[in-house]
Amino acid sequence: MSVRVACVGIAVLDLVFRLPELPRAPKKHLARDLATVLGGMAANAAAAAARLGARACLVSRVGADPGGATLLAELEALGVDARAVERVAGLPTPVSAVLVDAAGERLLVNYADPRLLEEAPAPAEPLPGPVDAVLVDDRWPRAAVAALEAARARRVPGLADLDHPMVEPWAGRLLATASHLCFSRDGLERWTEARDPEAGLRAIAARSSAELAVTLGAEGVLVRTAHGFRHLPAFPVRAVDTLGAGDTFHGALATALGEGRPWEEALRFGAAAAAIRCTRPSGRTAFPTRAEVEALLGAQPEIDA
Amino acid sequence: MSVRVACVGIAVLDLVFRLPELPRAPKKHLARDLATVLGGMAANAAAAAARLGARACLVSRVGADPGGATLLAELEALGVDARAVERVAGLPTPVSAVLVDAAGERLLVNYADPRLLEEAPAPAEPLPGPVDAVLVDDRWPRAAVAALEAARARRVPGLADLDHPMVEPWAGRLLATASHLCFSRDGLERWTEARDPEAGLRAIAARSSAELAVTLGAEGVLVRTAHGFRHLPAFPVRAVDTLGAGDTFHGALATALGEGRPWEEALRFGAAAAAIRCTRPSGRTAFPTRAEVEALLGAQPEIDA
Repeated sequence: MSVRVACVGIAVLDLVFRLPELPRAPKKHLARDLATVLGGMAANAAAAAARLGARACLVSRVGADPGGATLLAELEALGVDARAVERVAGLPTPVSAVLVDAAGERLLVNYADPRLLEEAPAPAEPLPGPVDAVLVDDRWPRAAVAALEAARARRVPGLADLDHPMVEPWAGRLLATASHLCFSRDGLERWTEARDPEAGLRAIAARSSAELAVTLGAEGVLVRTAHGFRHLPAFPVRAVDTLGAGDTFHGALATALGEGRPWEEALRFGAAAAAIRCTRPSGRTAFPTRAEVEALLGAQPEIDA
Repeated sequence: MSVRVACVGIAVLDLVFRLPELPRAPKKHLARDLATVLGGMAANAAAAAARLGARACLVSRVGADPGGATLLAELEALGVDARAVERVAGLPTPVSAVLVDAAGERLLVNYADPRLLEEAPAPAEPLPGPVDAVLVDDRWPRAAVAALEAARARRVPGLADLDHPMVEPWAGRLLATASHLCFSRDGLERWTEARDPEAGLRAIAARSSAELAVTLGAEGVLVRTAHGFRHLPAFPVRAVDTLGAGDTFHGALATALGEGRPWEEALRFGAAAAAIRCTRPSGRTAFPTRAEVEALLGAQPEIDA
């Protein structure tokens, strides 16, 4: 039986504009291409988990608008169980404008109506059924905390992907409830105001007993251990598109935790999945399969401390 | 009878994200607000002309998709005759991501499928009926040249709003056919590779017998005269949103030319309309009325050379 992963948080319609270089001046720029793809931390993570063979479901809210219909069709095509995605009349589906340059670097601007997620109550059922791991992002605070509390009660891993600070009391409750926390570098800096990743993780450790890590892009992953810190190197790849790489990391990480892998091994699995994702243009075919991830893991020497 | 203005060129769905400041780093940014508004040079100009009391029609092409339907509804709400806007199956409606900061500065990234306009033939009828003035932009070359040729044959003003270079032979034919050319500052630099606006207009004058001007934003308008150049100062306003200001300028300018006003008086009318537009957030209510433009013109001293 494949592992069951529930992802709780935001789903976004990403409008991906490709340009020769990212615009720097406040002017008019003409893009070479535009693609509409699935976006949002939890939604992308669910798609990544599904592609890796997990039975992935998404708990989210979208608008009852054409964008929301597009997102649900995309989730279905990607093999994600979207029955727990609510369509909300009168509120818009979250949208991001994503600008990607020829080197795969990206600038993203997201808008989500605060009534859709940030201020919305948790769903009546925090999780839609039996699960082996729970992944939450930081965009739907009440649902994230409820899902992590349910994970804790069921003794399954409760992982949080943290990118933007939450308001209290949700931030404190989330830090106290999650079993595993994995920040983006920017997210850790925003949560702690510490520019140094080690200092940031130390600040979080004062408020949380969870396993802690921070992703550093091409510089790999920093993990907090019982004895200090360990640095996991990134897999050397030629990146063409970093959009969704962090979400893919977290979807793979949740899948590996659901399978019972230890924290560092699961992080390495996530890093391999993210590395493969970066080598492909964003879209349905960008998510790596388990065979691809295992092949990359097998090709690499073991991590040294 | 009110003046009849035909606008030929692009219509765009503008997704306007408001942020505290324009993003400079290739990261993830959260917007405070998102609005979907009418965009595109010709479409915005038609809306501006309609609001000034002209009978404005738009000649354009959009996709047979939800975005195209939204655009047509928006044009109707703004009083623009959109019967000559073709809905094309299988091609997407042009979309722009527009990022606007708290000071009203804006960064715009547009995508239009080249098959929709750039490579498309001119419509069977270059103009949909009797007109007093024609305005074209540079995004649908064959239609722009056909409309300017029709304007010339009918002895009505044929104005071009030039922002991005066209390929030959359309660029040469457009320069040779238009009666009036008004560039944006960036557009003139892109057309001529001259950074100095006077040098740019001199280069255009070697290829065109049209009346020439270039808009310089808050620095006003530079006009080429029989004796050299004249500088028209901008109307001093507190800008909150420059999105669509240039298009409003051109819609008002075409309206004034259709009414038979001389070039410099028409430019001043356009500058006043653009100035008022800048004081308002973009959207349906941003376009100024004739009374508002006349009031601003009356409140200002006459231009000195």
